[in-house]
Amino acid sequence: MELKYIAKENSKRKVVKVKGIPVGDGDFTIIAGPCSVEDMDMILDIALWVKENGAAILRGGAYKPRTSPYSFQGLKEEGLKYLKCVSDKTGLPVVSEVIDPRDVKLVYQYVDMFQIGSRNMQNFPLLKEVGKYDKPVLLKRGMAATIEDFLMAAEYIAIEGNDNIVLCERGIRTFENYTRNTLDITAVPILKELCKLPVIVDPSHGTGRRDLILPMSLASMAAGADGVMIEVHPCPDNALSDGEQSLNLKDFKAIAERLNSTKECFLDTRSK
Amino acid sequence: MELKYIAKENSKRKVVKVKGIPVGDGDFTIIAGPCSVEDMDMILDIALWVKENGAAILRGGAYKPRTSPYSFQGLKEEGLKYLKCVSDKTGLPVVSEVIDPRDVKLVYQYVDMFQIGSRNMQNFPLLKEVGKYDKPVLLKRGMAATIEDFLMAAEYIAIEGNDNIVLCERGIRTFENYTRNTLDITAVPILKELCKLPVIVDPSHGTGRRDLILPMSLASMAAGADGVMIEVHPCPDNALSDGEQSLNLKDFKAIAERLNSTKECFLDTRSK
Amino acid sequence: MELKYIAKENSKRKVVKVKGIPVGDGDFTIIAGPCSVEDMDMILDIALWVKENGAAILRGGAYKPRTSPYSFQGLKEEGLKYLKCVSDKTGLPVVSEVIDPRDVKLVYQYVDMFQIGSRNMQNFPLLKEVGKYDKPVLLKRGMAATIEDFLMAAEYIAIEGNDNIVLCERGIRTFENYTRNTLDITAVPILKELCKLPVIVDPSHGTGRRDLILPMSLASMAAGADGVMIEVHPCPDNALSDGEQSLNLKDFKAIAERLNSTKECFLDTRSK
Amino acid sequence: MELKYIAKENSKRKVVKVKGIPVGDGDFTIIAGPCSVEDMDMILDIALWVKENGAAILRGGAYKPRTSPYSFQGLKEEGLKYLKCVSDKTGLPVVSEVIDPRDVKLVYQYVDMFQIGSRNMQNFPLLKEVGKYDKPVLLKRGMAATIEDFLMAAEYIAIEGNDNIVLCERGIRTFENYTRNTLDITAVPILKELCKLPVIVDPSHGTGRRDLILPMSLASMAAGADGVMIEVHPCPDNALSDGEQSLNLKDFKAIAERLNSTKECFLDTRSK
Repeated sequence: MELKYIAKENSKRKVVKVKGIPVGDGDFTIIAGPCSVEDMDMILDIALWVKENGAAILRGGAYKPRTSPYSFQGLKEEGLKYLKCVSDKTGLPVVSEVIDPRDVKLVYQYVDMFQIGSRNMQNFPLLKEVGKYDKPVLLKRGMAATIEDFLMAAEYIAIEGNDNIVLCERGIRTFENYTRNTLDITAVPILKELCKLPVIVDPSHGTGRRDLILPMSLASMAAGADGVMIEVHPCPDNALSDGEQSLNLKDFKAIAERLNSTKECFLDTRSK
Repeated sequence: MELKYIAKENSKRKVVKVKGIPVGDGDFTIIAGPCSVEDMDMILDIALWVKENGAAILRGGAYKPRTSPYSFQGLKEEGLKYLKCVSDKTGLPVVSEVIDPRDVKLVYQYVDMFQIGSRNMQNFPLLKEVGKYDKPVLLKRGMAATIEDFLMAAEYIAIEGNDNIVLCERGIRTFENYTRNTLDITAVPILKELCKLPVIVDPSHGTGRRDLILPMSLASMAAGADGVMIEVHPCPDNALSDGEQSLNLKDFKAIAERLNSTKECFLDTRSK
Repeated sequence: MELKYIAKENSKRKVVKVKGIPVGDGDFTIIAGPCSVEDMDMILDIALWVKENGAAILRGGAYKPRTSPYSFQGLKEEGLKYLKCVSDKTGLPVVSEVIDPRDVKLVYQYVDMFQIGSRNMQNFPLLKEVGKYDKPVLLKRGMAATIEDFLMAAEYIAIEGNDNIVLCERGIRTFENYTRNTLDITAVPILKELCKLPVIVDPSHGTGRRDLILPMSLASMAAGADGVMIEVHPCPDNALSDGEQSLNLKDFKAIAERLNSTKECFLDTRSK
Repeated sequence: MELKYIAKENSKRKVVKVKGIPVGDGDFTIIAGPCSVEDMDMILDIALWVKENGAAILRGGAYKPRTSPYSFQGLKEEGLKYLKCVSDKTGLPVVSEVIDPRDVKLVYQYVDMFQIGSRNMQNFPLLKEVGKYDKPVLLKRGMAATIEDFLMAAEYIAIEGNDNIVLCERGIRTFENYTRNTLDITAVPILKELCKLPVIVDPSHGTGRRDLILPMSLASMAAGADGVMIEVHPCPDNALSDGEQSLNLKDFKAIAERLNSTKECFLDTRSK
C-alpha cells in the first residue's frame, strides 16, 4: 500500500480544522444533527440544543443518497440554505453530504465541511473534485471497503491538494443482521496507525439502533477515536429518514455529558 | 420492495437491443474484450478475434475506477476513440464504463452501451444521468449490494425514461478469499424472477482467476443467465490491469465454442 | 496447505462407493430424502418415489443439530431403524448425520454413509472417529469455512484411514439474506482442482428456497459437481423441519428428470 | 427467540463464580495465559506473573482444535496436569478448552471452568455434556454465529442444569482481512441486554495482532464487557500456536495496569 499524501511524516498526526474547530488535536469532537434537514425550525432547534450540550459541529443531510428512489431524497439547496443560516446564527460549523461532482461548487458555498458518504467512498471523480477545494472532508468508509480501500480513497482526495480529511468508520456489511451494520471499532487504531488523519466513528449508522449509541460511542473513544458523529432528532419516530437510530434531544444531552466527562481517561489513546 | 419501471408486466421479459443485437431474447450473449483499452492495435486484434469466435458485443475500459490512484487509470477519451473506430470497422457494438455524470454526454458519442461499474452502483446522480439517454445500460452489482439494493439501482435509471438495462452479477465480498469475490450465481434466477430485465454474469471479476471462467460461465448459463461478460487479452501477463483474470485469445475461442455448443440445453431456463 | 491423504496422485480422482453406488465416477448422483425422518410411512413413501425417479441414495436426518434446543431434535435411533428398514426394502443406500463421536458406532450399524453437518465440520474428535470406520463420509462445508478449512477437515478424516469422503458445498454466510445462505458454486471446480475427492452440492440448504433448487442444481452440474443432495417431503408445508426448502414429490420428479436428461452435456467438466 | 434458562428475571444479572472468583459482579475480570500449555515451567512462570499483575483467572489450552491436523494439537491430559498443579501453587483458578464430550469428565477433574471454543459453539452434544456438571462454562461465539445462534447455544447448556455461563465475543468472519477476525464489540451490550449472563471479550483471537489488544480491551470495557481474555507468552515469537497475537509478560503488565486503572470509569455500563 503506497500512501504518500496521507502518510505520517515523523509520526506526526494531522489536525483538521473545521471553521476553526480542531478535529484530531487530542480532544474528542462530537458532531451531531439530524439525518436529513427537514425544515428551518427543526434544524435550528437541534443546533441550539446540541451546541448547548457539547457538540462542536452540526451535521444535516440535504442531498440524501437513498436505496430506493421512492424514499425522501432531501431538500437539496433549500436544505443547505437552512444549514448555512443556522450556522450563522449559532456559530456551529456545518458538515453536509455531497453526492455529485457537479454540486461541489454549490455545496462549498454553504457548508464548512464536505461529507462523502459510504456509497460514494469509491466515487473517484467526486473524491477528486472535493480534493480541489479548501474546505475539509469527512470521508465515510464504504460498506464493503477494506482498510486499504478506505485509505486509498482518502489518498485520491489528498493528491488533489486537500489533505484536510477526517476518516469515519460507520460499520461494514456482514452476516450479522441484529444490527444494521457491524461497527468495526478495530479499524480506529489501525487507521490511526497507518495514516496521519483523524478518525471518528458514526455509531448511528454503525448500529442502526439508538440504544447502542452510548456504549458504542464510549467504545470508540476508548479505542482512540477522535470523535463521534451522532444523529439527533427532536422526534425520532417522525423523522423522514433513519428515525430508529436517532436520539431525541434529552438522550443526546445525557450521552454528550457522559462522553465529555469520560474523555480525559483516553487522552493518551487518542493522541497516539 | 416497490418496483415500477423494471417490474414485469404480465410476466413479460424485456429484450434489450445493443445497436441491434438483442440481449435477453432467449439466446446467450457473449460480451468480450480487454479490461482496459491499451492501444489501437490491441483492441482491434481482440475485436476481430472475439467477433470471429462468437462474441456479440465488445467490451473495453477507457475510464478505469481503480482502488489506488497510482494504478493505470485508463486512456479516457482516446480509449473511447479507439473503441468507436474498432466498432465501425468490425460492426461489433461496444460497451464501456462511465464513472462521472459529467462524462456521460461525451461517452454517449462513442459507445453503444454504457457500463456502470460495481463501485458506482449506488452513484445515484450517475444512474439518473444515463437514465436520460437512449442507449442501453449494463449495470453491475455492487460488492456489498443486496438483491434489493441492486434492483433499486436499476429502478433509479429506469425512472428517468431508460429501461434498456442489463443487470450483471459480478461477485460479492465475503470472508472467502481464495477467489477475488464470491460469485453469487443464485442471484441470476432471483433477479429474473423479480424483474423484467436480462441478467448476465461476469465470471472474470467474479472469480479473479482465468481457470474458473469456463465452469462459472457454464454454471451461469445453466442458472438461466442471458449471457456472460469475459475479459480477453492477447497477452494477459502483460495486461495493464487485471491480467490474472483475463483469457488469452486461444482460450477464449475454446470457451466461446463450448458456450455456443451448450446453450441449446438451457433455452428453457433462460426464457423463463 | 499441506494435503497428503486427500491429494491427487498423478491427477487421479477418487471414486467413492456407497454400498456399491459410485460417486465421482463421471456420472451425476442424486441424493434425495427428507430433512428429518418423521415416521416409517413417510420415509418409505419418499424412498420408493425418489428411487423410481432417479435418486441413487436416500438421505434422512435422525439426529438433528438445531439452532434452538426447543426445535424438533430428530427421532434418533428410532429414525435410524426406519432408514435401515427402508434401505433393505428398496435397495437404496442411506446417508444420515452423526453429531456425537459416542454415537458413531451405533449409527454405523444402520447407515451406508455418515454425514458430518456444517456445524460439525471442525468437530475434530467426530472427524477422527468416522475416519476409523469403513463406511464413506459426506462432509458438508461449514458456514464460515474457507476452502482451506474445508480441505483440512477432510484431511483429518482421511488421516485416520478413511479417504472415502464426498465433499458437499452447501452455502456460506454472507450479508445477502434474500437466500438462507450464499451458495458458493465456484467452490466446486476449486475443490476438484485441489484434491481428489468427489464434490456435490446441496441446493436445499444452500438457498433455503425450493424455487431455486432446479437452477442451482443445473448450475452445480455445469460447474462440474458430481451430484446434488436435495430435500424432498411429501407435504413440505407440514415438515417438522426446513419445509420451505423441500420439494414435493411431483416437483422432485420433474427436477430429477431434467438433471438426468442434461447430465450428458457436462461429462467433461465432471470428470476433469 | 425463546430464552428460558438464560433469560433475565426481574432484570437481574447472573454472577458466575469460578472457584470463588466472581465474573459479572460489576468488576472487570482479566483472564490471561498462553494459547497452548507448552511445558510446566512456562505455564508456572506465566501464572505467577499474570497473578502478580492483575489477572484473576489463568487460561491455557491443553486440547487444541487446529485447522490443520499437522499443527500442534496440545499436550492433552499432561497439559491439564500442569494447569492443575500451577493452579494449586498459585491459587489462580484455571479455564481450559474441552473439545470432545468423552473428555468432559476427565477435564472436570483438572480445571475450574470449561471453555467451549468457537468451532464447537454448535457442538450440541458437547454443550449438553458440560451442562451436566457443576463447574462454570466459558462459551465462545462461533465465527459465523449470529446473536441468536450464540444465545441458543448457551441455552442448550443451561437447560441441562448449569447456567454458570460466561459468554465470550471473539470476532466474526467478514471480508476484512487486515485483522484475523472482525471483533464485534457491539455484541457486548446486545448480549447483556438480551440475557442475564456475563459477557467478556477475547481481543487476542478477535484481532490476531498484539498491538490491538490494548485499544480493543479498553473498547470492550467501555462497551460494558465484564472482562477480557488475553493471550500471554514469555516469548511470543517462539509460541507453538498463535504467537503473533500473544503479549509478552512486560506488555501484559502494562495493559493490565491500564485496564485496572480505567475500570472505575465504566462501573455503570458494566452493571447495566
